[in-house]
Amino acid sequence: MKVLITGFDPFGNESINPAFEAIKLLPNKVLNSNIIKLELPTIFNKSIEILEKKIIEIDPDIIICVGQAGGRFKITVERVAINIDDARIKDNAGNQPIDEPIFKNGENAYFSNLPIKSIVENIKKNKIPASISNSAGSFVCNHIMYGLLYLINTKFKNKKGGFIHVPYIPEQVLNKSNMPSMSLENISKSLLIAIKTSITVKKDIKTIEGSII
Amino acid sequence: MKVLITGFDPFGNESINPAFEAIKLLPNKVLNSNIIKLELPTIFNKSIEILEKKIIEIDPDIIICVGQAGGRFKITVERVAINIDDARIKDNAGNQPIDEPIFKNGENAYFSNLPIKSIVENIKKNKIPASISNSAGSFVCNHIMYGLLYLINTKFKNKKGGFIHVPYIPEQVLNKSNMPSMSLENISKSLLIAIKTSITVKKDIKTIEGSII
Amino acid sequence: MKVLITGFDPFGNESINPAFEAIKLLPNKVLNSNIIKLELPTIFNKSIEILEKKIIEIDPDIIICVGQAGGRFKITVERVAINIDDARIKDNAGNQPIDEPIFKNGENAYFSNLPIKSIVENIKKNKIPASISNSAGSFVCNHIMYGLLYLINTKFKNKKGGFIHVPYIPEQVLNKSNMPSMSLENISKSLLIAIKTSITVKKDIKTIEGSII
Amino acid sequence: MKVLITGFDPFGNESINPAFEAIKLLPNKVLNSNIIKLELPTIFNKSIEILEKKIIEIDPDIIICVGQAGGRFKITVERVAINIDDARIKDNAGNQPIDEPIFKNGENAYFSNLPIKSIVENIKKNKIPASISNSAGSFVCNHIMYGLLYLINTKFKNKKGGFIHVPYIPEQVLNKSNMPSMSLENISKSLLIAIKTSITVKKDIKTIEGSII
Repeated sequence: MKVLITGFDPFGNESINPAFEAIKLLPNKVLNSNIIKLELPTIFNKSIEILEKKIIEIDPDIIICVGQAGGRFKITVERVAINIDDARIKDNAGNQPIDEPIFKNGENAYFSNLPIKSIVENIKKNKIPASISNSAGSFVCNHIMYGLLYLINTKFKNKKGGFIHVPYIPEQVLNKSNMPSMSLENISKSLLIAIKTSITVKKDIKTIEGSII
Repeated sequence: MKVLITGFDPFGNESINPAFEAIKLLPNKVLNSNIIKLELPTIFNKSIEILEKKIIEIDPDIIICVGQAGGRFKITVERVAINIDDARIKDNAGNQPIDEPIFKNGENAYFSNLPIKSIVENIKKNKIPASISNSAGSFVCNHIMYGLLYLINTKFKNKKGGFIHVPYIPEQVLNKSNMPSMSLENISKSLLIAIKTSITVKKDIKTIEGSII
Repeated sequence: MKVLITGFDPFGNESINPAFEAIKLLPNKVLNSNIIKLELPTIFNKSIEILEKKIIEIDPDIIICVGQAGGRFKITVERVAINIDDARIKDNAGNQPIDEPIFKNGENAYFSNLPIKSIVENIKKNKIPASISNSAGSFVCNHIMYGLLYLINTKFKNKKGGFIHVPYIPEQVLNKSNMPSMSLENISKSLLIAIKTSITVKKDIKTIEGSII
Repeated sequence: MKVLITGFDPFGNESINPAFEAIKLLPNKVLNSNIIKLELPTIFNKSIEILEKKIIEIDPDIIICVGQAGGRFKITVERVAINIDDARIKDNAGNQPIDEPIFKNGENAYFSNLPIKSIVENIKKNKIPASISNSAGSFVCNHIMYGLLYLINTKFKNKKGGFIHVPYIPEQVLNKSNMPSMSLENISKSLLIAIKTSITVKKDIKTIEGSII
């Protein structure tokens, strides 16, 4: 099998992006499958174009996009992406779309078809905090997740894909107050667990991971 | 015009629900429109059934469902509801569905068709903290919002509807640590602003209210 | 009896200070006692000088200083002030002392001699969140509290005094994320309860209000 | 030189205490100095008695006590301990003192005489989040810090001592919401930095590390 895993370049006021830093630490092979790593620009539309080209080029079985979730305490495996771009800040090319659909002919939302609850369960078994998230926001992270799932639902129907948000790493919060972080080692370990789980689990489990809000 | 506004009964470990407490303080009439108030049980499916019956009975132009978001700091106007029930705790009838669709023939998600950004803007103009939220969770709040929007999209096509989450009120956090609250007066005032805005605004504004995550 | 209550002027990036705003709403008389209100500048040393002059001028029985604690969720009645100025930001006159004692001949710390636990208890009985705090920080709030208690312990031995921190009010957090607030009405009501409790309670109660950290 | 470093046993609902877990990972020697490790019971008074005996037995130059600060985001080097026991929960022997002085003839508070700002600075230089704290709470952590500094100020005048609070480690927050953690490796590394800094720095630096509240 082939697994494509992507991370964004730094955005906002950050000089690194823990998503791609963690991806760089991954091995190139696991469970007889190749891991292909790709850095995506934090740019609306262009990120999806680059992702689609890479999917066509390497024909992966599984695609996992990863992004930074500054302020979150745990590895959060996203459940769903929504058909909206609503940017709080400019992306890395200066775009700031407000309330625009990502694909006009797309569905309102797409659900990840990764075994998201198995991934959370396996990360937690390794003593790393993880949970399901029901929102990837409305910036480029939701955008790429929606784009990936739109492509899977319309063009690449046998592929599996989804999105994982990771916390800041400690060096990013040295001068921030009350801001959680997670070690790069644990983030990278979690991504490897997510890859292995996505390769091996055919039918997801039903664990209590819902949110009241 | 007629506006139906609903709030849930208390759930979890709470003895009151600030949503319905705030609704009780609303006037019965505003801007020449009637406000009809309805308390819904925090119960999967049954809440939607009761809501549908009431909509058929009174034929409102606008339906706003309101729920408690313990832990949130602001009035949060929900953007979207997703087609999933995934309960962290039992509802008030003992049900705890895990990863089940709400309506098998429903879309993956529905967007609120209330003027959500105008509502946020007008609440903030009244010096009350408010923002857009991209997730109503996966418990009964998302369930009723999805149910309402499913009904609007399939049966009641000219109606407007959406969901608003409100924080705890101060008396609920007396013995909780680091838990935000908002005065019942400000919650109720916000709901009245939401009603008035929904009555008067035909086309929503585009303000910067997106979320990075 | 006479009660002197003080609040600071706005500091940092804020245009109002909820402490003095709440004080302005207090009555001039309660329980047959006069309430005298004083706004203090958020300035090291000068604030203590002005406070001392006012104490000499009006000879109050009880002195309560009040300050803004942006980020706190509850009314926090301070237990202790420490003999250190360590400013994170400049005060309103541009001073920024680092690790300097407030009074060289002062004790390391002074405890409030207000009935702090009775105050917390009575505020909570009125359904307003309150707790004891073990640190007033190291900026001008701790400075004035230490100065007041130094004066009480060295010159004005029969007087009672202490410090209360209050949260932001809602209008201050409109554009802040995850920042708690409390209505001005509840803050002002809490200060009146603190005054009444300080007038009437001779011996404080022992309630469970300690902090693990 | 000799350095004594202590950590508490688990308390509250926890099955481990990250403080002593991190201490166990420390080397026995650094910079030609011996590191002596001691686990203390989370028990009022008894913990001070055991600490005093050990100080008499091994005659260390530097004593650093370490405790768990569940909920804090950073390594926090404590500035001051106050003369009060005010327990929110029972200690490990069932004691729950409320508002009682630790030593009746002690000062109201004692300041750490470790180079606290140098420690914070050096930890941050190693990309680990750290800050000064102005309160060690009112439970057994503040108790042991006060006890240590009381002993240093009254009996062991040439010794240096202080207290460091450490966050939860990841495995403790798997089933907690919005609770920060830090890797055991980073906690242990921070403690080693604190030891080395305490050995080498004779005069502390003045950095901006104060708290507004």
